[in-house]
Amino acid sequence: MEKKRKATKPLLAITQGDPTGIGPETIVGAWARPEMHEICRAVVVGHPGILKRAADLLQIPARVIDVENLGSRQPGIESSPNVIPCLPCGGDDALAAKSAMVDARGGQAAYNALVRAAKLALDRQVDGIVTAPLNKAALWRAGHRYPGHTELLAELCGVRDFAMMLYLQLENAQALGVVHVTLHMALADVFRNLTEDAIVSKAKLVNATMQKLVGRPPRIGVCALNPHAGEEGLFGNEEQQIIRPAVELATKAGLDIAGPFPTDTLMVRARDGEFDAVVAMYHDQGHIALKLLGMHRAVNVTLGLPIVRTSVAHGTAFDLAWQGRAETTGMIEAIRVAAKLTSRPDS
Amino acid sequence: MEKKRKATKPLLAITQGDPTGIGPETIVGAWARPEMHEICRAVVVGHPGILKRAADLLQIPARVIDVENLGSRQPGIESSPNVIPCLPCGGDDALAAKSAMVDARGGQAAYNALVRAAKLALDRQVDGIVTAPLNKAALWRAGHRYPGHTELLAELCGVRDFAMMLYLQLENAQALGVVHVTLHMALADVFRNLTEDAIVSKAKLVNATMQKLVGRPPRIGVCALNPHAGEEGLFGNEEQQIIRPAVELATKAGLDIAGPFPTDTLMVRARDGEFDAVVAMYHDQGHIALKLLGMHRAVNVTLGLPIVRTSVAHGTAFDLAWQGRAETTGMIEAIRVAAKLTSRPDS
Repeated sequence: MEKKRKATKPLLAITQGDPTGIGPETIVGAWARPEMHEICRAVVVGHPGILKRAADLLQIPARVIDVENLGSRQPGIESSPNVIPCLPCGGDDALAAKSAMVDARGGQAAYNALVRAAKLALDRQVDGIVTAPLNKAALWRAGHRYPGHTELLAELCGVRDFAMMLYLQLENAQALGVVHVTLHMALADVFRNLTEDAIVSKAKLVNATMQKLVGRPPRIGVCALNPHAGEEGLFGNEEQQIIRPAVELATKAGLDIAGPFPTDTLMVRARDGEFDAVVAMYHDQGHIALKLLGMHRAVNVTLGLPIVRTSVAHGTAFDLAWQGRAETTGMIEAIRVAAKLTSRPDS
Repeated sequence: MEKKRKATKPLLAITQGDPTGIGPETIVGAWARPEMHEICRAVVVGHPGILKRAADLLQIPARVIDVENLGSRQPGIESSPNVIPCLPCGGDDALAAKSAMVDARGGQAAYNALVRAAKLALDRQVDGIVTAPLNKAALWRAGHRYPGHTELLAELCGVRDFAMMLYLQLENAQALGVVHVTLHMALADVFRNLTEDAIVSKAKLVNATMQKLVGRPPRIGVCALNPHAGEEGLFGNEEQQIIRPAVELATKAGLDIAGPFPTDTLMVRARDGEFDAVVAMYHDQGHIALKLLGMHRAVNVTLGLPIVRTSVAHGTAFDLAWQGRAETTGMIEAIRVAAKLTSRPDS
């Protein structure tokens, strides 16, 4: 029985993120927590020397061991607080990058780990990936000009219909997922990217993923774009011309969806349990709410990829990095959500 | 001593709001709470018959008495849970408006009470006004086409430089005020209304009011417009071209002000006590945060008027109206903030 349970635990690849930030600490910190090993088996993609540093800093006695490849899905990889399996990735110059500083070597290391982990997942050598934060300025300095993890992953996976969802387990035992129709763009560019198709597509994506996470068809609320949902056209007409028709289309497609609602009250209603998922029209609309509801526990889930990918919702947090003070809750939550999304109905 | 204290308690005019909504219940409910009478003396501007109905519904034994005028500031008006002084305003047709329904008679009654209360304050017959919610559709049906209370009050007072602030006493004993640079307009119209002047002006308004409420120069954080504060121009340039220069001007003018910051994290920092006030660029940016932090306790304060005016932040709530279930906390908070704003240094 014990053996069978172990065999079905998903294998996750965790990227180290930017080694100058809090990523390595959150990973090693998570390793020391028993729930991590109940949930999954995991391998870190990064530099073993960085992980050793983080383990020393946190005074965690786990051994970091090199894992050369996962070709046979490494049946030898077990979940254990005593061993951190690491798939080495990138060169030793990452070791020289100063902590809590923007450094191209840190950006390059984060990039390498992400690309490698995504490939492992695409090749089905792991069941999903969890990413530690990267620093965008460092990523750019290393020559990789992506607005964020999400867009880079979409490119690596060759998909165009994807979305970022922020997910949070609320204190009332409800779960809430907020998907963004538009994301990393100027607010002024939202208007030409907000289409009926885009809204329906994101609604379907969040519907499929939240179905897995809550175990039933989620109740979806859709944000308005304008204050007071436009007051019947007085403050803008996107509600009437784009969002309401999209909600009607999604309803016809079988989704349990309603809106558009004024966003300020919709977020309160969702928090209070009336909705499992919210479709936000732009970045800050979703992020203001989710970060207030649970900054450190929020999980970033990329929807629409052929692989499972979650992430902590926080950044590299240079103000905290390499001081042994970083919160590990977000990392544990990201791992928990990834494991849940990898589970097949028969497992 | 007791007499002196009473004499300095401010006299507030409370508008009844739309009689079909929860306004009358929240007023009568507040009357039954002892803190109300510690804070102020008050007179309701509205229809005595409506107030009697609300008192009957809530089984509150206070007598509603007609007050014909406040020419001499009615030294006879004392604060007492047993008596609700009412300055009659508007005709009896308001009595016929059905509860929880959009009705032009309700809109007209709310309008009449607001105009009368504002005039009382402008004439210095009261020290400030507190408004119960009106229903905009009813207001419009009565022929008064204003986007909200705020704009109507600004017109009544003849001012052009005004702003809406949402104010909340947080659970950590901090207070937070969020002022909006733009308010009741389509999101697409924000861009042409977002000017350096407008930001500096709203920052000065919130600075003056929050100084009164927290008793020292407030620490002010300024929102970015774009996600991630524009990422140095990658996602929009309003931060560099408009908001940052405005923050510099406000700093030169002596304000303790910083930003622009990414709004999602700024709101978390403000909640956690790093700022006393936030300058939001548009309606939902401020409202999403404040309503999540305390929907029922939030107070709406109009800045820039020659009179003190506060309001509950919620609406007429037809789903609750005339069922005896309405929350009175928002009304008490609105009264508390109005009383605090009326206090002069020597009182």
